[in-house]
Amino acid sequence: MTDPLKTGATIGILGGGQLGRMLSVAASRLGFKTCIFEPQGDCPASHVANFHYKAEYSDTDALTNFANACDIITFEFENIPTEALDIIEAITPIHPNRDALATSQDRFLEKNFLTRIGLQTAPYATVDTAETLEQAIDQIGTPAILKTRRMGYDGKGQSRLMSPDDAPQALADMAGAPAVYEGFIDFSIEVSVIGTRGADGSVSCFDPGENVHLNGILHTTTVPAKLSPSQRTDAILLTANILNALDYVGTMGVELFVTPHGLIVNEIAPRVHNSGHWTQQGCVVDQFEQHIRAIAGWPLGDGTRHSNVTMENLIGNDVDRLAQIAKTNTAIHLYGKADAKAGRKMGHINTVTGPAA
Amino acid sequence: MTDPLKTGATIGILGGGQLGRMLSVAASRLGFKTCIFEPQGDCPASHVANFHYKAEYSDTDALTNFANACDIITFEFENIPTEALDIIEAITPIHPNRDALATSQDRFLEKNFLTRIGLQTAPYATVDTAETLEQAIDQIGTPAILKTRRMGYDGKGQSRLMSPDDAPQALADMAGAPAVYEGFIDFSIEVSVIGTRGADGSVSCFDPGENVHLNGILHTTTVPAKLSPSQRTDAILLTANILNALDYVGTMGVELFVTPHGLIVNEIAPRVHNSGHWTQQGCVVDQFEQHIRAIAGWPLGDGTRHSNVTMENLIGNDVDRLAQIAKTNTAIHLYGKADAKAGRKMGHINTVTGPAA
Repeated sequence: MTDPLKTGATIGILGGGQLGRMLSVAASRLGFKTCIFEPQGDCPASHVANFHYKAEYSDTDALTNFANACDIITFEFENIPTEALDIIEAITPIHPNRDALATSQDRFLEKNFLTRIGLQTAPYATVDTAETLEQAIDQIGTPAILKTRRMGYDGKGQSRLMSPDDAPQALADMAGAPAVYEGFIDFSIEVSVIGTRGADGSVSCFDPGENVHLNGILHTTTVPAKLSPSQRTDAILLTANILNALDYVGTMGVELFVTPHGLIVNEIAPRVHNSGHWTQQGCVVDQFEQHIRAIAGWPLGDGTRHSNVTMENLIGNDVDRLAQIAKTNTAIHLYGKADAKAGRKMGHINTVTGPAA
Repeated sequence: MTDPLKTGATIGILGGGQLGRMLSVAASRLGFKTCIFEPQGDCPASHVANFHYKAEYSDTDALTNFANACDIITFEFENIPTEALDIIEAITPIHPNRDALATSQDRFLEKNFLTRIGLQTAPYATVDTAETLEQAIDQIGTPAILKTRRMGYDGKGQSRLMSPDDAPQALADMAGAPAVYEGFIDFSIEVSVIGTRGADGSVSCFDPGENVHLNGILHTTTVPAKLSPSQRTDAILLTANILNALDYVGTMGVELFVTPHGLIVNEIAPRVHNSGHWTQQGCVVDQFEQHIRAIAGWPLGDGTRHSNVTMENLIGNDVDRLAQIAKTNTAIHLYGKADAKAGRKMGHINTVTGPAA
């Protein structure tokens, strides 16, 4: 383990969206400067960062300059081109590590990894052709979901099969991309654990939050989740297992289905996660600061929750309710995006519902 | 009252120190962009702002460009040259208003104002010469403090008189600046109220915090303060009186001495205030966001405190304790200043001590 990063150092963030924005603010609280790499101008993170490299991920010179300007580098999304990472990593360390990123960039590799370390996932099979899809349906049955192996998020790149008759449409929806066929899970609730592993191998997890989705996009996260003490312990232990197995440094989101047969891992995200936004009002050290502390080699916060919180995403026209929301005792977090397109995450609100028990 | 400022609008902040830094972050949470005017490069606020005009307050072109770039303008310190404000205000509205600023820029005008609206201050007299100082000593007695009328903060521009013998030294300390002679107050504790008045005249105050100073600089603020219910009510009502009398829009800090004869106003600050930093961990809407909401014409948060907090300033070498502090469950707020000079405010920490009763 190297020395902790000194205040005043510069942290580079690949990606200029809302996660980069909130990471940048958290970094500033610890006295760090931030430098955003993002092709889009006027991006959410650039409003609260010290510097913004507005360049494409194919721009070798810009990537080189960016890497030279930063003491360490992290990212706010998983689909960063490998070539860009190669250029950057030759100059400046990247956290979390490339292996963790590669594993979670590909749903098939991710499920193989989870299975290998003894965790439960939905039954799955890789699908490239009509023939392999037919085999997967035979093996796993319907209903099921076909998902692209890479680049999917918020319900994008997914197609639902209620019966084998839906196979041709589902395959067409993949547009030729390699896919994974996943059996439906009969779960009572979905929870997620936001866990962080420090540079010294210490692990700290926040209490699991209970997620509700609308139209494939996270709608609310509520803490505490309706879990038994043993379910809560299991959720946190398996998250620690994942973090340790990947030799991970940083914050990760782990989505879990709660079933009568135990917890089933839906997916992992190698970054701060929408379902962890409640920590901004519920904890002294939130998920963004935990991530910065980890990658900077600082001690982690202990994850203690002082307040119960419900987080609600503001999607698209939800921001029309802002004048009303502003009259209530709710913490508003807007992302500085100009256009409230349908399905676009414009912000979130955290409502403190009482002191933690 | 004009329409509320729309998200995406730009808020200008005169001054690039830590208060501007935290105002900028609060503005970003509400979807605003910020533009800092500050002569010093690499200033705390610039690390988390969208734009930084690095120019002198005498630079008419820069002030004009800055004013044109902003939808509304506010400030983080009170000693802004009048001429600069004249140039800016001809183009873009400034909140809080100029009268409030002028009143609090001058200790003598401030005390006259407080007396006029029926509040108690320390006995005071204006001092320009050895003769007027002698008269003040005769009238008010010693011990007392001689303070410059303008530009003093954190114990600067002050001289203590334990007996009339100290008069020559005290006068010399003023270096010819107009001064105010203030009698000592025998107080049990000092508290401050952070109050905000909205564009619609609504007022919201946070619970009073109890302040402890070290070497003339605020050391800790603790909520709740040790006040009786009637003292707490008095403190909040008199703060509302001040805000209303000044037709104030924004957040103000009011320092009060608690005495057997009631509350005595020590001073008012027409801006967010160091003794209100605890609100970042104690309330859903903190003092910085209250200020932004007020000047933007948004509804105010209700000031509810969900947690008890002790705020401690990190002054100069206090930041050497950072590695130790980072191991505790404490919220760290560093200001991004390069050099830990003696007496310089480098950051603060907020420790949540429990749920609010």
